[in-house]
Amino acid sequence: MKEFLARYVDAEAFDKLLSGYLRGVDIPDALKLPIDNALLSVGKRLRPALCYLGSDLAGGDRRDADPFAAAIECIHCYSLVHDDLECMDNDAYRHGKPAIHAQFGEDIAVLCGDALLNLAFEILISDAVTPAKRRAAEIIARKAGVSGMIGGQAADVSGSARDLASLEEMYRKKTGALLAAALMSGAAVGGTDDLTLKRLEIYAYDIGVAYQFRDDVLDVTSTREELGKDIGSDSDEGKVTAVTLLGVDGANNKAKEYFEDALDAVAPLGERSKPLFELADLLGARTF
Amino acid sequence: MKEFLARYVDAEAFDKLLSGYLRGVDIPDALKLPIDNALLSVGKRLRPALCYLGSDLAGGDRRDADPFAAAIECIHCYSLVHDDLECMDNDAYRHGKPAIHAQFGEDIAVLCGDALLNLAFEILISDAVTPAKRRAAEIIARKAGVSGMIGGQAADVSGSARDLASLEEMYRKKTGALLAAALMSGAAVGGTDDLTLKRLEIYAYDIGVAYQFRDDVLDVTSTREELGKDIGSDSDEGKVTAVTLLGVDGANNKAKEYFEDALDAVAPLGERSKPLFELADLLGARTF
Repeated sequence: MKEFLARYVDAEAFDKLLSGYLRGVDIPDALKLPIDNALLSVGKRLRPALCYLGSDLAGGDRRDADPFAAAIECIHCYSLVHDDLECMDNDAYRHGKPAIHAQFGEDIAVLCGDALLNLAFEILISDAVTPAKRRAAEIIARKAGVSGMIGGQAADVSGSARDLASLEEMYRKKTGALLAAALMSGAAVGGTDDLTLKRLEIYAYDIGVAYQFRDDVLDVTSTREELGKDIGSDSDEGKVTAVTLLGVDGANNKAKEYFEDALDAVAPLGERSKPLFELADLLGARTF
Repeated sequence: MKEFLARYVDAEAFDKLLSGYLRGVDIPDALKLPIDNALLSVGKRLRPALCYLGSDLAGGDRRDADPFAAAIECIHCYSLVHDDLECMDNDAYRHGKPAIHAQFGEDIAVLCGDALLNLAFEILISDAVTPAKRRAAEIIARKAGVSGMIGGQAADVSGSARDLASLEEMYRKKTGALLAAALMSGAAVGGTDDLTLKRLEIYAYDIGVAYQFRDDVLDVTSTREELGKDIGSDSDEGKVTAVTLLGVDGANNKAKEYFEDALDAVAPLGERSKPLFELADLLGARTF
């Protein structure tokens, strides 16, 4: 996976890009370190990679995708900061380091997340100078919001997923929406057509659900060391998961179906879909 | 004040405008009531009024200001939802009703706030189709973020205001920035020039600080009934306020100075500044 992502995002160069945007705003002392810790040198940069991949696929210039990749990563990072809050998932660690709220307090973590979400849109609005860029920004705004990621998180915390259809819907929004925003915004700014955009959307949503189903399986089958958290922690909380609904084999088979649907959607793109096939393989082959 | 605001915002029509935007997104059941309660039929709509006032002042069409007025109110309402959280100000009541977190839980309140912030930008990006509208959206994005409101809130929760200069700076950002965003975005979309925009910015920031200084005074001089909260609650918490720094008379005098500075800034606008003088009088004359 690392080698695949490195084809699209150079971790150091991407940190520089983000740092540049941070220098463009006036950050009070109380938020400087929290924002740096939440945003810089963290994570796999999967969403930025998808954004640049989308740009490549559309024959665009990767530099045009920079603001969109940066904005999406700001949105992803804010969602993690808020997700980790005591009143949400109450996770004290993230990326092997103390979570923002654990290090700086709940209040600063709320504001740090708000700041990153707002910053994403400062970047997008400043850049929305052509119809293609405005379209890319619109895609991100919608898929990050109640119609997408936030909607999925709300369904998750309220435990409204009770059957396969509603669980799938929750995962589509919670995980698929931002992956779709990344891939689609890159392709949109590269000037791709509506049909291709639709194919990429289906791919990203299906990949998102497949990934979550695999995650539910790994939650009960992995060793504690592999997973880095307590085994079975999701189902222990009485949450409906792919495994509680379908069992391990059923959930695995369903995940495979989603991966196949994802690939069917983008197969008509021919040679251009090759990296999307690779990525699906890499995500499907994930064991922890 | 009520009559003044009614000249710019019809409460019912504005609720309809907001409801229209809510119908444009796909809200999960868990967020429907929280978002309605946080956004609809609440507050004085001071910021939307300022936005329409700015539009009038620039000779614009108020309908062009609709998305900006709506977005700013979404931002204002999200900031209240997050401010009221247990880990922030821990206020159980807002507008005489249970606060969102008190009614729906902390997790839903975090997401409800996130959703309203995101919605504001969905509205702004969809509307950013002309340079004037993009400029107005940029103003709002910057002033709502770390450089503005969020920066002021972070300074507030971290208690970094220790002297008059830093207290003033905190109030400028926390309260002034969004008032400025409202007035300036309306004027920007109405096509006003940069110098007028600068005058409106100074006015709004000064009004914001003056208002907060008066608030600090009223916090210690009002009767409990007038204020609707415990007297002296701010200074009891050991917070630095205009009164702890300057005393009641000093703070009152300083507030008066800010009001005067605000009016000096917009006096060159002549007849067009009349409503801005009226508003300053109304805010300065406030006794609770």
